[in-house]
Amino acid sequence: MVVVGNEILSGKVQDSNSYFAARELRKIGVALKRVAVVPDELKPIADEVAYCARTFDFALTSGGVGPTHDDITLEAVALAFGRRLVVHPELERMIREHFKERIETGMRMAEVPEGAVLNAAGNLRYPTVQLENVYILPGIPQIFESKLTALLGRFATDPYFIHAIYTSAGEGTIAEYLNRCLLSYPDLLLGSYPRIGDPEYRVKLTLESKDGSYLERAFRYLLELLPEEVVVKTE
Amino acid sequence: MVVVGNEILSGKVQDSNSYFAARELRKIGVALKRVAVVPDELKPIADEVAYCARTFDFALTSGGVGPTHDDITLEAVALAFGRRLVVHPELERMIREHFKERIETGMRMAEVPEGAVLNAAGNLRYPTVQLENVYILPGIPQIFESKLTALLGRFATDPYFIHAIYTSAGEGTIAEYLNRCLLSYPDLLLGSYPRIGDPEYRVKLTLESKDGSYLERAFRYLLELLPEEVVVKTE
Repeated sequence: MVVVGNEILSGKVQDSNSYFAARELRKIGVALKRVAVVPDELKPIADEVAYCARTFDFALTSGGVGPTHDDITLEAVALAFGRRLVVHPELERMIREHFKERIETGMRMAEVPEGAVLNAAGNLRYPTVQLENVYILPGIPQIFESKLTALLGRFATDPYFIHAIYTSAGEGTIAEYLNRCLLSYPDLLLGSYPRIGDPEYRVKLTLESKDGSYLERAFRYLLELLPEEVVVKTE
Repeated sequence: MVVVGNEILSGKVQDSNSYFAARELRKIGVALKRVAVVPDELKPIADEVAYCARTFDFALTSGGVGPTHDDITLEAVALAFGRRLVVHPELERMIREHFKERIETGMRMAEVPEGAVLNAAGNLRYPTVQLENVYILPGIPQIFESKLTALLGRFATDPYFIHAIYTSAGEGTIAEYLNRCLLSYPDLLLGSYPRIGDPEYRVKLTLESKDGSYLERAFRYLLELLPEEVVVKTE
């Protein structure tokens, strides 16, 4: 994911889009492998987009798609793929409708890299521009979140299955059971998150696998290993 | 800045260290040019550290410096510079003192890339490791913040001077004055941040320059241009 924005690098705004994307992608089994925050400058954006597009299955950008002079993400994505910018007729029609007499302000937004396609964006009128394996999203969190949510379906090919166990015993007490579980289920992703000062539980264990039946077996096995009295609840 | 951590890429934790660093560096006039979040894997960390170290004046890393098997940032920084890991005698002494009988757990933390130096970290006992222009900081926010704060003095060579003007008029009303100010002071960094629903003001203007007297002149000039009744307060 490439986050475009001087306002983030200068600390005026905290980026929340990458955190949202990380959580939502994780839920559907997609491993986010990289986030880069770059300034509103052509070459840093283009270099990072080119790197992500060739290294990973797909890339998202966030920010730099408005009507003002410093919104250059579309131009940078075009540069990354060696394409020119062209007016997209469907975007032009929508923008003429929206901007009306202020059309000269909006017309920059009708220009997309040659070969770009438009994706429906749920209940948002304005579609999401895609070039090859790069999806170009806006920086405003509410719109970013709606647009990404509308795209998630196409990425959800191989979701993680997840269980959680909350224990009243600390990590020292349960470590031996965790290790025994991992010996029998070496492919289980087992996370252990101690919590300080919570009256309800002391450790949250997360069990994850892309194989649902493997996860169920590992989950039941660990529950049998753990002393009954330390298990507060399961999810 | 290179943020190391699977827990951030998987959305389990929101990174706050890059936001803290962006704000603190900005205050002392340092422009943060890039943030990359990478997984706990040698090559992605090493590649990104190498890129930042050769491209920018200095680089920070955050995370991956604890005693467990997945803490590999020091090894990755060594790889980025083609150095080997060596035990640092001063670190070894401190770690022996701290870990006592659990010394085998901590000894990994005494290994640093050959040629690394130690920097005092304010009132923290454990110093900050530096190799060339790379400063290696931990991921735990409280410790990251203390360590970075202790280092800031050495980066503060060329601070920005900042003024703010809060107006009761909207952007449409004041745009003409802002443009006239920029014609006379083209090097001024002028930001305009509308606020919705605040009874106190409608727009916050920020004026920034590395030249203090230039900033003072631009600030007074803009105050003279603006109708007196629209200026709510200044900073």
